[in-house]
Amino acid sequence: MTEANPAFVLRELKKVTFEDRQVPKLDDPHDVRVHIEQTGICGSDVHYWQRGRIGDFVLTSPIVLGHESAGVVVETGSKVENVRVGDRVAIEPGVPCRRCDFCRSGSYNLCEDTVFAATPPHDGTLQKYYTVASDYVYPIPDHMSSEDGALVEPVSVAVQIVKVSDLRAGQTVLVFGCGPIGVLCQAVAKASGAAKVIGVDISEARAQFARDFTADGVFLNNAEPTAGADPVDAAREVAEKIVADYGLGLGADVVLECTGAEPCIQAGVFAAKKGGTYVQAGMGKENVVFPITAACIRALTIKGSIRYSAGCYPEAVRLISAGKIQPSKLITHRFAFTQAEEAFEIVKQAAENTLKVIIKGVPR
Amino acid sequence: MTEANPAFVLRELKKVTFEDRQVPKLDDPHDVRVHIEQTGICGSDVHYWQRGRIGDFVLTSPIVLGHESAGVVVETGSKVENVRVGDRVAIEPGVPCRRCDFCRSGSYNLCEDTVFAATPPHDGTLQKYYTVASDYVYPIPDHMSSEDGALVEPVSVAVQIVKVSDLRAGQTVLVFGCGPIGVLCQAVAKASGAAKVIGVDISEARAQFARDFTADGVFLNNAEPTAGADPVDAAREVAEKIVADYGLGLGADVVLECTGAEPCIQAGVFAAKKGGTYVQAGMGKENVVFPITAACIRALTIKGSIRYSAGCYPEAVRLISAGKIQPSKLITHRFAFTQAEEAFEIVKQAAENTLKVIIKGVPR
Amino acid sequence: MTEANPAFVLRELKKVTFEDRQVPKLDDPHDVRVHIEQTGICGSDVHYWQRGRIGDFVLTSPIVLGHESAGVVVETGSKVENVRVGDRVAIEPGVPCRRCDFCRSGSYNLCEDTVFAATPPHDGTLQKYYTVASDYVYPIPDHMSSEDGALVEPVSVAVQIVKVSDLRAGQTVLVFGCGPIGVLCQAVAKASGAAKVIGVDISEARAQFARDFTADGVFLNNAEPTAGADPVDAAREVAEKIVADYGLGLGADVVLECTGAEPCIQAGVFAAKKGGTYVQAGMGKENVVFPITAACIRALTIKGSIRYSAGCYPEAVRLISAGKIQPSKLITHRFAFTQAEEAFEIVKQAAENTLKVIIKGVPR
Amino acid sequence: MTEANPAFVLRELKKVTFEDRQVPKLDDPHDVRVHIEQTGICGSDVHYWQRGRIGDFVLTSPIVLGHESAGVVVETGSKVENVRVGDRVAIEPGVPCRRCDFCRSGSYNLCEDTVFAATPPHDGTLQKYYTVASDYVYPIPDHMSSEDGALVEPVSVAVQIVKVSDLRAGQTVLVFGCGPIGVLCQAVAKASGAAKVIGVDISEARAQFARDFTADGVFLNNAEPTAGADPVDAAREVAEKIVADYGLGLGADVVLECTGAEPCIQAGVFAAKKGGTYVQAGMGKENVVFPITAACIRALTIKGSIRYSAGCYPEAVRLISAGKIQPSKLITHRFAFTQAEEAFEIVKQAAENTLKVIIKGVPR
Repeated sequence: MTEANPAFVLRELKKVTFEDRQVPKLDDPHDVRVHIEQTGICGSDVHYWQRGRIGDFVLTSPIVLGHESAGVVVETGSKVENVRVGDRVAIEPGVPCRRCDFCRSGSYNLCEDTVFAATPPHDGTLQKYYTVASDYVYPIPDHMSSEDGALVEPVSVAVQIVKVSDLRAGQTVLVFGCGPIGVLCQAVAKASGAAKVIGVDISEARAQFARDFTADGVFLNNAEPTAGADPVDAAREVAEKIVADYGLGLGADVVLECTGAEPCIQAGVFAAKKGGTYVQAGMGKENVVFPITAACIRALTIKGSIRYSAGCYPEAVRLISAGKIQPSKLITHRFAFTQAEEAFEIVKQAAENTLKVIIKGVPR
Repeated sequence: MTEANPAFVLRELKKVTFEDRQVPKLDDPHDVRVHIEQTGICGSDVHYWQRGRIGDFVLTSPIVLGHESAGVVVETGSKVENVRVGDRVAIEPGVPCRRCDFCRSGSYNLCEDTVFAATPPHDGTLQKYYTVASDYVYPIPDHMSSEDGALVEPVSVAVQIVKVSDLRAGQTVLVFGCGPIGVLCQAVAKASGAAKVIGVDISEARAQFARDFTADGVFLNNAEPTAGADPVDAAREVAEKIVADYGLGLGADVVLECTGAEPCIQAGVFAAKKGGTYVQAGMGKENVVFPITAACIRALTIKGSIRYSAGCYPEAVRLISAGKIQPSKLITHRFAFTQAEEAFEIVKQAAENTLKVIIKGVPR
Repeated sequence: MTEANPAFVLRELKKVTFEDRQVPKLDDPHDVRVHIEQTGICGSDVHYWQRGRIGDFVLTSPIVLGHESAGVVVETGSKVENVRVGDRVAIEPGVPCRRCDFCRSGSYNLCEDTVFAATPPHDGTLQKYYTVASDYVYPIPDHMSSEDGALVEPVSVAVQIVKVSDLRAGQTVLVFGCGPIGVLCQAVAKASGAAKVIGVDISEARAQFARDFTADGVFLNNAEPTAGADPVDAAREVAEKIVADYGLGLGADVVLECTGAEPCIQAGVFAAKKGGTYVQAGMGKENVVFPITAACIRALTIKGSIRYSAGCYPEAVRLISAGKIQPSKLITHRFAFTQAEEAFEIVKQAAENTLKVIIKGVPR
Repeated sequence: MTEANPAFVLRELKKVTFEDRQVPKLDDPHDVRVHIEQTGICGSDVHYWQRGRIGDFVLTSPIVLGHESAGVVVETGSKVENVRVGDRVAIEPGVPCRRCDFCRSGSYNLCEDTVFAATPPHDGTLQKYYTVASDYVYPIPDHMSSEDGALVEPVSVAVQIVKVSDLRAGQTVLVFGCGPIGVLCQAVAKASGAAKVIGVDISEARAQFARDFTADGVFLNNAEPTAGADPVDAAREVAEKIVADYGLGLGADVVLECTGAEPCIQAGVFAAKKGGTYVQAGMGKENVVFPITAACIRALTIKGSIRYSAGCYPEAVRLISAGKIQPSKLITHRFAFTQAEEAFEIVKQAAENTLKVIIKGVPR
């Protein structure tokens, strides 16, 4: 009798189901098969469910959802050397082609042919078993929970954002957004020796969580904008207020924008020190009104951050296992595999006090 | 009898006059006095004349205009070692404070206390004599004309833009704008080993000049936009057409935006290769509609370039004296000192076939 | 009656005396005069005393000794804005020319015309009063002792070494030497987010101090070399043993060499990971037998670190005032100003349990 | 009847033979088979022949020699997209594992598991056919000869050396050695916008070739050292003479050491500008007497360069096809495949006027 492999599948726009799929096979002697133990839900999972596309990635056939997972290695290909059956691992969900110029030059996050879990047309990890190249699984130590293992994914996103920012010890960091990625960026920045890490959010609940989690201060940006005021002028005023209130001198050395919200993007440009660095990590509207002349005169370096690159997963595992970051503190809701749709609903509602929702895997 | 020092003065908005000012004295033993021989006119000079301000710099009292000059050293302070009386020199017009964090860390272009010629409240170089710190004058060789000496300034602007872009030999470069700064960027990029340098302009006259000057190709962007089309979508189409027409593969490694025009800024983001670099050098509208999500997903590095930094002037002198760049080819109009207002009128009119206007100094 | 200004003067080789000098005057409106409260002694001070030269700097006329000092501002020039009379400050002992290419490009530590305290022919800080450019004094907070203020100097040396190494959070660091600079490098590396910091020393006393101070582990390198063994082979073996014993994988990401000892330099090359960074900070013999082929094949980046650059002093003050580094723990001996020669004798003897010797200033 | 595949095999130390081997098969759907047309001989090929090892790579079983080759694609795997049968290509001889941290982070030249042609135990290209991963072959245009195609390899070595040096346009470059790699470095540096490129050699014949090929000047270092002089002092004097004779100011911005000779390594350290960059590319003695204190005080960046990284081969092809570098000018001897041993003898003799020796492939 073949073993079952229950999977949580997005069949079409707004329609999810449970299916019993075949246990995935190893395609390559370097592959491993992992029994999934925990899977975090991310906004992008919900985005495909509700809208069917992100950018050029369009849902045209059913895919298994989920891409933030940890589990136990249950099968290894003949050439696998870094892990053994029984090892607990965090799974990096995107395996690049290894052959294009991006892959060969160390920017595999830009590879056009990446097989990324739960990005159409590729299946994700919300199934009992998932196979993946062995160099994209990372052992986690015994004292690290599988929940923390699943959350290596968002921590890696934050590690990459901070890496892209080229943050140096002793610098000041301003992080727009106190959602999961925002607070994890704050924690990674602090663990990287940042002198001061200030958060910004419109929700007092999230602001309070950020203060408790890592931030040296959080600016609660909940004032009503003056009627008729120019939005960019208003953003500049907010920026100047943040810089003054939190003693950021001539501006923050590093700004990490984790909301994608237009007013935050605008404020971020004015809050950065001349010659400073601004990283765009949040994604919202495709186009925004942007103070380009200020960015030019201030000689800013503005960089986009996307996914993760070599070393992010190991560094995230290290930060968690060394106790520098405790991502499981972000978990506000836990669900059984059979409650996956309910979990997705919670993320969709995006309540102020929802941070991270996690789904337990199918028991073995 | 004291020597005369005729000066071309912006007295107030839109009102210029000739005045006979005192010969400027050396304030510091490191200063030199230069007899001005040639002065190029720049858009910013005209801007102060017509609008009385650029950003936070506001005309509140009369200033001598002009900041792109070369001349002959006629007096040196007691501690001057790098030049002697009689040396022909190009003048870097901004002398920073030397004491702030920006100055001390090598970013003197960001110094808030820079004394910049013809930026209120500081006098410029359109006078018979100008005094300046000796480390901000650079000897030019005998075979280099004073016109070329004056044009070291815009060449230095281009050198800084290319430096900010971190261009490496073998990369492809797309330059928006074929005005003076645009074509000089094209020339500097080529002299830096760029594999391919493509210009973009809306004027066939300027495009043709750019082709003759350095560019490997120039895209004439004079098509009428489709009625009702989304401007950002249109810009993306232009970008894709440029990339295809000029064989730029996955996009240009480096984009240099020298127009400040909104459609060019938008197209520049889409024309850059993933992981590539885009430099904003042109200044137009304060705020533009900007494809921030594309910039993020493409992991671009977007940098502002302003003025020049250490080494730009020497490199510009070298490029010109070695014959790698011939900026005097850009001169379309020459005027005597007494015709200065006429020269400014020409620049103000900004005709398609006006590139660089230059004013001869007061004879000695 | 003029105020006295007692000074501790190196008159000639091996001959020090106390002199009553004139109170130094402000040479420039940007200068300040500081009443010296504490001065640490450094090996280079002793070097001039005992040998009369370091490299090209030769004692040819008497100089006041001392260059690691903190004190209180007692007079300010008319243009001083960053400090006021009464402010407690740490003094950066080298004021560069501000005009050469190195100064202008952000490498003022390489300026050939730096006025460096107690480097011939410039007087040092072991006097009652010292005058210096105001941008080279840095306020210290009330809760920070003057002893810690004096030790901002060696902490800044360590900050520069780590900055030169381009250390990133999450990297492993191997530090040769557990003297003052070595242990401070270990502390700065740790505060910069290093994943693991391992020290190396031949003295168990210093090794134990380093373990207590910051290091995650210290390799005691006190084994007798095998008779007749090739020294470089022996160094390689030591390197391999360190890497294995301390779990450094393919080698340390960053090696900081703070001894100048030939066997450490050799071992450092082999202990660094391929593609890793090695910083030479210690100075001993002019020339050493060096495994250049290993350095080449391993594609190492080897950098020299000398003095400090912009931002080092502020970062050192921050690290101390935030409690991240407590340099006063290094102080093993304290002396009154009148005991200065005795203090120098202690440093000269270089006993295993001597770390930092400090001299109290002349009371006001 | 199976097709023959003649190969030139190093059977054991100093013993080469011709063998008829099996036509190599495609191991992977991404592989291609190339009919070899030209193969350059490199010092390392001769090194294995004469000494049987380089570093940790030891000849323990017969290998086909040769690794600098170009040819025609005669067979492609099912997944090959970048080339077709009939394409003329240059072959990059080292295919890395694609899975280790070095490969994933863009440093595939450091991969420990690289399959490198003619490095034991891997077969080289001196056979009729060679199979290799398709992303390691690069199409060459019709107007580029197969000889130039074979010499893409040493040009790529030079491209990597210059890349490692981080050379910027306008810098001065001093290259020790005017052998093939030295003169190609000079050419690549010049094509990268170097302001001045100076060579150094002990042979007037090679010096003259370098002058004709690219160098702005070549220092002939054939003076007898003063009897009894300290070798490092002597090297320093040579360095100072070069810097003075060729107007290198405070020293060369970039030093490229392509000889591995101890006196050159020593001179290189003293010839570099403070804060400058020195690249070790030549390999000679394992260990040399090295002026480490000078390197430290001068704050040099010393880097090892080994093999090539992503982008080097395409850039080398571009430089050659654009006529910027003509490596076939280096060819002093041409041989038929059947004369391969004679070709190796010529390289072994290393006569002053031997630069590059090339072997024609087995006709199809």
